[in-house]
Amino acid sequence: MEGLLLSEYSDHSSDIALSTDFYEITMAAAYYHYNSNNNRNQNNNKTTKNAIFEMFVRKLPLNRSCVVVAGLEQVIYFLMNLKFNDTHISYLKSLQIFKHISEDFFEYLKKFRFTGTVWAVPEDTILFPDEPILRIEAPIIEAQIVETYLLSTINFQSLIATKASRIVSAAEGRSSIVEFGSRRAHGPQAGLLAARAAYIGGCAGTSNTLAGYKLGIPIFGTMAHSYIMSFETEEEAFEQFSHLFPSGFLLVDTYDSIKAIKKIIELGIDIKGIRLDSGDLYYLSLESRKLLDNAGYRDTKIMVSGDLNEYLIQDLVRKAAPIDSFGVGTELSTSRDDPAMNGVYKLVALRIIETLDDTKAMTSNHNMLSYKLKSSPGKRTYPGPKQIQRILKNEKMVEDIVELEGEKETSSSLCVPLLQKILDNGSLVYEMPSIEKIQRYCFEQIKLLPDQFRDLDYMPKEYPVTFRQKLKTMSRTVKTA
Amino acid sequence: MEGLLLSEYSDHSSDIALSTDFYEITMAAAYYHYNSNNNRNQNNNKTTKNAIFEMFVRKLPLNRSCVVVAGLEQVIYFLMNLKFNDTHISYLKSLQIFKHISEDFFEYLKKFRFTGTVWAVPEDTILFPDEPILRIEAPIIEAQIVETYLLSTINFQSLIATKASRIVSAAEGRSSIVEFGSRRAHGPQAGLLAARAAYIGGCAGTSNTLAGYKLGIPIFGTMAHSYIMSFETEEEAFEQFSHLFPSGFLLVDTYDSIKAIKKIIELGIDIKGIRLDSGDLYYLSLESRKLLDNAGYRDTKIMVSGDLNEYLIQDLVRKAAPIDSFGVGTELSTSRDDPAMNGVYKLVALRIIETLDDTKAMTSNHNMLSYKLKSSPGKRTYPGPKQIQRILKNEKMVEDIVELEGEKETSSSLCVPLLQKILDNGSLVYEMPSIEKIQRYCFEQIKLLPDQFRDLDYMPKEYPVTFRQKLKTMSRTVKTA
Repeated sequence: MEGLLLSEYSDHSSDIALSTDFYEITMAAAYYHYNSNNNRNQNNNKTTKNAIFEMFVRKLPLNRSCVVVAGLEQVIYFLMNLKFNDTHISYLKSLQIFKHISEDFFEYLKKFRFTGTVWAVPEDTILFPDEPILRIEAPIIEAQIVETYLLSTINFQSLIATKASRIVSAAEGRSSIVEFGSRRAHGPQAGLLAARAAYIGGCAGTSNTLAGYKLGIPIFGTMAHSYIMSFETEEEAFEQFSHLFPSGFLLVDTYDSIKAIKKIIELGIDIKGIRLDSGDLYYLSLESRKLLDNAGYRDTKIMVSGDLNEYLIQDLVRKAAPIDSFGVGTELSTSRDDPAMNGVYKLVALRIIETLDDTKAMTSNHNMLSYKLKSSPGKRTYPGPKQIQRILKNEKMVEDIVELEGEKETSSSLCVPLLQKILDNGSLVYEMPSIEKIQRYCFEQIKLLPDQFRDLDYMPKEYPVTFRQKLKTMSRTVKTA
Repeated sequence: MEGLLLSEYSDHSSDIALSTDFYEITMAAAYYHYNSNNNRNQNNNKTTKNAIFEMFVRKLPLNRSCVVVAGLEQVIYFLMNLKFNDTHISYLKSLQIFKHISEDFFEYLKKFRFTGTVWAVPEDTILFPDEPILRIEAPIIEAQIVETYLLSTINFQSLIATKASRIVSAAEGRSSIVEFGSRRAHGPQAGLLAARAAYIGGCAGTSNTLAGYKLGIPIFGTMAHSYIMSFETEEEAFEQFSHLFPSGFLLVDTYDSIKAIKKIIELGIDIKGIRLDSGDLYYLSLESRKLLDNAGYRDTKIMVSGDLNEYLIQDLVRKAAPIDSFGVGTELSTSRDDPAMNGVYKLVALRIIETLDDTKAMTSNHNMLSYKLKSSPGKRTYPGPKQIQRILKNEKMVEDIVELEGEKETSSSLCVPLLQKILDNGSLVYEMPSIEKIQRYCFEQIKLLPDQFRDLDYMPKEYPVTFRQKLKTMSRTVKTA
């Protein structure tokens, strides 16, 4: 394979089907063979088995009091475009472990499409631990095969949207936040996805050009130290840049921030803003503002950057540092204090659908739910397909009630069911909102959140989530072996 | 843009040029205009300016004593395939900030190709802080534009290769490590890149199917709890799976690990291994081994998984837990204890090339290096293009000498220059090794490392790195304003 790799690398949108843990495919083969041999029940009627999986987060990342859900758009794209091509099939067939698997299965994979039904909360919905983010009902092979991609997409974007909303909250509406972290993100695609998640989590924009090009997110850029250093003098670098980009920002800390600002003033350079990237940002922002104001540069903005996180930003904002915007890199794009959202995807029920050979019309009435539950010590899990009813009072979330789907069909302005139908038997039935609308929804959600949940250090002892009695009873009584 | 996004998302191999911080492009425009207007020196001879940038890591991630460098292959791919298409150019031209930028620049971008020269250490070279990982010499626009992609690629893969080598070292050669982290990786591409980096960092394989398909990495898969739960009984699930996959592994902890192993034995199931995924892994592995051995299942392997990291693995291995392999997910694919490699890319010199109009042949002799250095308080940086000479003694690294390129041309079996020429004026001059060769080189490098550096908790006070006097002097004397 030597040499080949180089040209094979990188594009994998056509290969999303293989972007999965291998066990999803071995399990698929096992399900396929089992179903082929066991598709008649004791009455000799044909049966098919749908699986119902739910994704939820058992434990939030460190110091997070809630999760801002994100990534649904990419999940929809994946589910609607997922397919195996001939090269994929040849690769799978070449694997030793598949030697006992019949050709039928690979023929099945060739025609594979996702035909299931998906319920999910809209992006930027705020949820708490154990609440279902998404539910899939599909033939078990389909529901299984999509697991890994779905988890990695929602886990990562939710991780970053949650982190972004913390950082944006820390700025208390007084400064804007721009995502600057592509160079430390986990590869180029992670940079793009982080830019998206940061934006829908409330950031004003990103430095990632691809996010502007592909997703319409506002992009920002100033200059690097290398730009300044490539000129004989800092003055020349400033003049050259501001002449071309009067709406740009000048990076002032290459040699000495205060001296650089004095040069800008002395030269009478017309520029939108300056960026401080090192040193004591509180002191420097105050000094810079003073210098600029005294010289009549009242409209010149101050941006700061350099290993910032929500705590440093809150501190600067509360000390009233005159900072117009913060560029946040590594801490945001990697969610550095805890870089993993532990979302899981669990089988909660099987639906056995019995097809009566002579009365096909009645099929849909002849199905039976079999609730499923893994008995992990110390981990409480609730079986069955669920819905979340969110109770609002005085424009605040007061309680979420998690119940079996269809247990109680109420929807009013004060009680909102959170999971919406996204795909119906493989077809999109949800109008995907624009990225701006998603961001606005985030701000609305944050407003609805009880005040203490916006505190960076608030660690709730109890979440305002109630599982209805029926679920609690089932959680104890569903057979687990 | 509503609705459109869905189909636009995902494939971005043709868009790698925009996978960059926006400031690289604004700087490019500024360089372009400056160069157009300043391409004659005082003698009225034509001049062009090459920039020399180096990438290095100033501070390693927490608890790391060295870095295992990875990601070069993807960087080469990027440099050789980078181009702007018409749609990219139209997007850029549509941005308000470019309104003063002339058409010439966009015409230049259309023809843009990377034509520079690249030196780098081979993948899996072990380096210490401040040592150059890679050096690029190119016309300044080219060298600048590639910064973000290059950093994100090498930072991430080096982060994971380094983490993987720690985890592999922790197993002390007694158990193998398989990377299981795609579902928690930072998106699907990060899952693929993490699988690659983990493999070249010493793992035996990955669960990521795409990494098998694209990169030829051995892939492993067992089964999920949902597989077991989808059957009426655990026994039925085991029998069905082992019949199809006798070389597979059975997951035993869905209900009760010990009871499950007893069922396997009772049913006389022929299977390659079992996987423990929860509970007291030390106790369970001992009990499982005992049960299996007593029943004649001496060849049945024990794999364990479940929130493992290098410390837990070292502990289990040192207590002689009979574990054949570890599946490591979140901790590995996100480098959870510190998810960022802070590699930076700094301008270290400019080369002014003077073209004498009448004697073109002499061009290459008329160039002048101008050393560059940013004066950040507290951060020592060394200007100029550098080479690392690694001194070996008794098959151990004893010292690295960092010197100006060409300062001393020695190469012997005891003194190896680490940076190799990869691209020469845009053309590949390096034979990219196979992924297996890269992995073997990692094991060789780990062997050469002084013993204490393999200790998980070793925090060197000083690295065995010496910067030659000339670099030290330059670091003090190069003009910085």
